[in-house]
Amino acid sequence: MKSFFENDAVELTPDGKELIILDQTLLPNQEKYIHITTAEQLFYAITLLKVRGSHAIGISAALGLAMCMNRFETNDLRVLEKEFLRVKKYLAISRPSAVDLFTDLNRMESCFYEQMSAAEESGEAIDRIKDRLTAEARNIKLEKIKTCLAIAEYGFGLMKPGACIMTYCNAGHLAVSRYGTALGPIFLAQENGYMPKVFVCETRPLLQGARLTAYELGKAGVDATLICDNMASIVMSRKKVDMIFVGADTVAANGDVVNKVGTSGLAILAQHYGVPFYVLCPSQTIDSNRPTGFDVKIEERPGYEVTEMYFEKPSAPIGTKVYNPAFDVTPASMITGIITENGISK
Amino acid sequence: MKSFFENDAVELTPDGKELIILDQTLLPNQEKYIHITTAEQLFYAITLLKVRGSHAIGISAALGLAMCMNRFETNDLRVLEKEFLRVKKYLAISRPSAVDLFTDLNRMESCFYEQMSAAEESGEAIDRIKDRLTAEARNIKLEKIKTCLAIAEYGFGLMKPGACIMTYCNAGHLAVSRYGTALGPIFLAQENGYMPKVFVCETRPLLQGARLTAYELGKAGVDATLICDNMASIVMSRKKVDMIFVGADTVAANGDVVNKVGTSGLAILAQHYGVPFYVLCPSQTIDSNRPTGFDVKIEERPGYEVTEMYFEKPSAPIGTKVYNPAFDVTPASMITGIITENGISK
Repeated sequence: MKSFFENDAVELTPDGKELIILDQTLLPNQEKYIHITTAEQLFYAITLLKVRGSHAIGISAALGLAMCMNRFETNDLRVLEKEFLRVKKYLAISRPSAVDLFTDLNRMESCFYEQMSAAEESGEAIDRIKDRLTAEARNIKLEKIKTCLAIAEYGFGLMKPGACIMTYCNAGHLAVSRYGTALGPIFLAQENGYMPKVFVCETRPLLQGARLTAYELGKAGVDATLICDNMASIVMSRKKVDMIFVGADTVAANGDVVNKVGTSGLAILAQHYGVPFYVLCPSQTIDSNRPTGFDVKIEERPGYEVTEMYFEKPSAPIGTKVYNPAFDVTPASMITGIITENGISK
Repeated sequence: MKSFFENDAVELTPDGKELIILDQTLLPNQEKYIHITTAEQLFYAITLLKVRGSHAIGISAALGLAMCMNRFETNDLRVLEKEFLRVKKYLAISRPSAVDLFTDLNRMESCFYEQMSAAEESGEAIDRIKDRLTAEARNIKLEKIKTCLAIAEYGFGLMKPGACIMTYCNAGHLAVSRYGTALGPIFLAQENGYMPKVFVCETRPLLQGARLTAYELGKAGVDATLICDNMASIVMSRKKVDMIFVGADTVAANGDVVNKVGTSGLAILAQHYGVPFYVLCPSQTIDSNRPTGFDVKIEERPGYEVTEMYFEKPSAPIGTKVYNPAFDVTPASMITGIITENGISK
């Protein structure tokens, strides 16, 4: 039986003709893998958040694009090119905020044109192009896994046996790729017999902590305890929390971190209680063109996520006004260190 | 038509024979008043949280005890005494943590024995005792309302027209008695045309902010916006919050405040952002026998409140460990002022 971490959230079958995705919208109540064979199915899987997290979306798009080419029958290079560009353009609009989506699709396009030039010169078969695209997509995934492992190792280096970690939202196996970012050091510690203890903030309103992080940590056998977000203060005050690990959506050039709403409050509490606060993310998350985090326009999401989603009945009177920002900005001064695949920097 | 605030959460009918309670467990989806005519019905209304908040529980018990006496037929003083003591003792165990419950039931007992002595000496009728008990219970309620109004006025004195207030949990009309404590100044400001703006924290896991505070403020026509608890930081950072008003379960002699879990985190954020943080409560909440708040044993409630209650499906995998403390302790140093019916003290 394969371990949880060998069942990736996004996988291409060995023949390259089917994409298998763990449907994250059904977790933790149902573990359902969906089989994707068309660009349209993948598009909806991304827009409906069946696959989420910038890394995982990038991987899905790259593997999905290769899969669509593998299934497309033609002997005409120009016809293949037209189809490639159609699918690429279509997938690129599935989730406007996922940085990896564009980076990874553009890398697939470079690969395609490189192979096409070679094919035109040498008369190589179309099958050869398809194979190279498939290999490139698999490489994209492997590189991301390597990045995550490097991040996990730097984070793990900060931990002692029995360490108690608090984490927020979900930046794990499901959102990224094998091991994830913020959860990577915890999985590594568990594998190394460190028996870490983890407090998981439920992360309202979308409950990524409860639904996904508690699920992942449970799968790995980690001693995890779920709390409501408003309990972080009493946990830091009464229990021994050694450090906090969170992910990041964007890091500005000055080190300000844009991440899931609630991150900034957790960082302020951590500073108050003297708990080290680390942000774990691939180096490509650092946006050198953005001087600080404070000019980021905060996405406001619909109020029903707060008052209706996941609830049996509305939690507040119908018509209650709701403010539902998706992100907040944690000033660099609140952060103990940023951990990327290149090491730990302040 | 009577206004919302004339419909008290707990009311005795003019004939003193029926207790009418707004069922808080059904709010905000259903406004159902339950009619109580026996001690047993009242006992379950209290244990099942149909009526909640120390003030409201104390009022219910006092009015309920008078109601039970009004319905009890006897011409024998000793039989009346026996029934009085039976009902009193029974109601006293309905909610062990509600301070007002004991204070108010003991006051009813003093009243009973005062009237009984007078009756034995003068041969007054049993009806006279029942009338005096009913009047005493109504007085208990009126005094609590007066206390709340005084608190509301001191709090209102801090506000300017258009003030923006953040509040937490529910310490309003429903939990206390007319006007409540933390919400009192807001209702007063609204009546005085100050058009206050209020951010209501939903208050996980029992959602008292979403279910009850948003409901009450909506009834009063106040411009209220619901947020998740983890959004308090971004609201204080990006919007102009003038002050935070919260209630208290217990205040220690040194000014430490024991209140709904999450209060301490909000106070730390308030201090970070320079937002004044006020605790509003009757002076009887201050426990001079408790030197500090840090020896308070924190009640841990069942995990299903976090993972199942109010949700359509469990939010986390079955078997996930949960930490669910009911209260936390906010150090006196984090609090701008404590507002009681006697004024504002630090």
